[in-house]
Amino acid sequence: MADSRVRFARLSEFITLAMTRLGLPAADAAIVGGLMAEAELQGSDGHGVIRLLPYARRIRAGGINLNPDIKVVQERPAMAVLDGDNGMGHLVMQRAAQLAIDKARTCGIGWVGSRLSNHAGPASLYARMPVAHDMIGLYFAVGNANHLPPWGGLDMLLSTNPIAVAVPAGEEPPVVLDMATTVAAYGKVKAKAQRGEQMPVGWMIDRLGQPLTDPKRAGEGFLMPIGGYKGYGLSLIVGLLAGTLNGAAMGSEVIDFNHDDTTTTNTGQAVMAIDLNAFGDVAGFKARVDRLVRELRASERMPDVERIWLPGEQSHEKRMTNARDGIAIGSVLLQQLDAFADEMGMPRLQSS
Amino acid sequence: MADSRVRFARLSEFITLAMTRLGLPAADAAIVGGLMAEAELQGSDGHGVIRLLPYARRIRAGGINLNPDIKVVQERPAMAVLDGDNGMGHLVMQRAAQLAIDKARTCGIGWVGSRLSNHAGPASLYARMPVAHDMIGLYFAVGNANHLPPWGGLDMLLSTNPIAVAVPAGEEPPVVLDMATTVAAYGKVKAKAQRGEQMPVGWMIDRLGQPLTDPKRAGEGFLMPIGGYKGYGLSLIVGLLAGTLNGAAMGSEVIDFNHDDTTTTNTGQAVMAIDLNAFGDVAGFKARVDRLVRELRASERMPDVERIWLPGEQSHEKRMTNARDGIAIGSVLLQQLDAFADEMGMPRLQSS
Repeated sequence: MADSRVRFARLSEFITLAMTRLGLPAADAAIVGGLMAEAELQGSDGHGVIRLLPYARRIRAGGINLNPDIKVVQERPAMAVLDGDNGMGHLVMQRAAQLAIDKARTCGIGWVGSRLSNHAGPASLYARMPVAHDMIGLYFAVGNANHLPPWGGLDMLLSTNPIAVAVPAGEEPPVVLDMATTVAAYGKVKAKAQRGEQMPVGWMIDRLGQPLTDPKRAGEGFLMPIGGYKGYGLSLIVGLLAGTLNGAAMGSEVIDFNHDDTTTTNTGQAVMAIDLNAFGDVAGFKARVDRLVRELRASERMPDVERIWLPGEQSHEKRMTNARDGIAIGSVLLQQLDAFADEMGMPRLQSS
Repeated sequence: MADSRVRFARLSEFITLAMTRLGLPAADAAIVGGLMAEAELQGSDGHGVIRLLPYARRIRAGGINLNPDIKVVQERPAMAVLDGDNGMGHLVMQRAAQLAIDKARTCGIGWVGSRLSNHAGPASLYARMPVAHDMIGLYFAVGNANHLPPWGGLDMLLSTNPIAVAVPAGEEPPVVLDMATTVAAYGKVKAKAQRGEQMPVGWMIDRLGQPLTDPKRAGEGFLMPIGGYKGYGLSLIVGLLAGTLNGAAMGSEVIDFNHDDTTTTNTGQAVMAIDLNAFGDVAGFKARVDRLVRELRASERMPDVERIWLPGEQSHEKRMTNARDGIAIGSVLLQQLDAFADEMGMPRLQSS
């Protein structure tokens, strides 16, 4: 059965209605629906509508505060810490990004961290928000399940803690890096298992440090950090900046939200905005980024390499394609969403 | 011939005098001498006194401004850009770190970038400076020679662009990550060549994308970024933040300071300080870091792993050992330094 294609607006509307039925206030449901649909739009399908069912499960179990009082608990001219009051992470991070942008406008730089937040979807969504304001955006987060031990260790105390950075360009699309600090994100392992494929050497190791390539045995091993001990260090530092600094969960405090629907996750994240206006001529900066992007793209290539990609360029193309042709939803997921819609007494995704 | 051991104070004094003889004002020479000796103290020997001769060569060729007017050219409450006026990078970055600390004290966060700076030694020196002020420090720099192409490419347009982050702890040493965005720094390749050893698979690839393990053939290949395309993205982002944002060199503009002693490098760097006081109770934060550090260190270990290290812990131990026993200087380097001292008409390193 071929994938179905759904318009962005329809997908956003569907998720928004679902969130409303689950008990979110209409304005909050619209924010979550819009951001989850935007994740799909840019091809971050591991963080898009596939999360609706797990979110719904957690909301019904009482693991999310549907009417959070998201508030600033620490503040200086260029920084703030938000208490997310255990609301949906998307709501907390949208507030965080907006506040970081406001602070950067007056101070040149703005940094807003969170505690008592929750999973908020792909990191790049929030790193991208400052770009429309001629700002560079950065985002750091503590992942919601621990999948790697310290380097040389066996206790899974660290997560895939992602980093995202978005840099405005002029005529070129923005440069957007969005990466887990592990070689592969855990979602990719799950996808390999679903398709019955083996993993490449380097994604995971077992408890003896040997390569683990059977994704069905993923529970017997760990994700590999990028660059070995370097990725371990990066994951730890991201966790310190996004988690520990804000009084959010880190290390053994991290709740595995795949297996626990009720305990408050106390998720920590951070958004930073850097105002290009503070650094001089914005048009000049964008022209320099364009020139650099084109120089990299025009590099001589290795044999069999068809094209040099810039970070974020593939997501940018997916945004264009998906906006034009609709967003592909796999048949298995669509069936699950149909069943969910029936259960909630709301129209199916493709009914309107 | 065994390594000689030299006291930190003597090494600092020796480099300071050498810098004075090369024409730096006494106060500036003392800053450079102190920081280069501190690099040795923490075991960053690739960025310590071994750089004295290349720096001297560049200074004598007129490639460094000995009396720079280092000044703020862009400023907002939480940020600034310094024009280094082609002075020694150590002077520019010390100013940058001090200014970032001052700004963080009032704004919670401070970010200071540079252009027209130069190589400044190990990244962690500057990331560590805010730690004494109960602040987290971050440092980003554009490397001074391009050693990697964009992912899939052959044109060396990117450098090992390092990231350093230093996080204060309580009873534990600070957590200090200092990493090139490549699997190995280029200095490690040079060291392998000197010792006549082969490189492990994964450090470099040749122009066909095949592993390159003979360090004598390093000129025929490229360094590998950590995590493949992820490290390419990280190197690019660090370059955008530390170089392009400040109007400093990036991409093909980067001058290879190994082979060019006269062209202004227009090196770009950035230091960020995050004031822990702005985020709440400092003692509470440090206690959380201590707890996390101990939890990671106590992890069950893989077979044959004797100890779990935290980022920066080995440098911390070297600081202790070298402060107590003196800093080891290899015999080949010592002979070069002796010849240099004779030539400058100043006492040899071990003469006093």
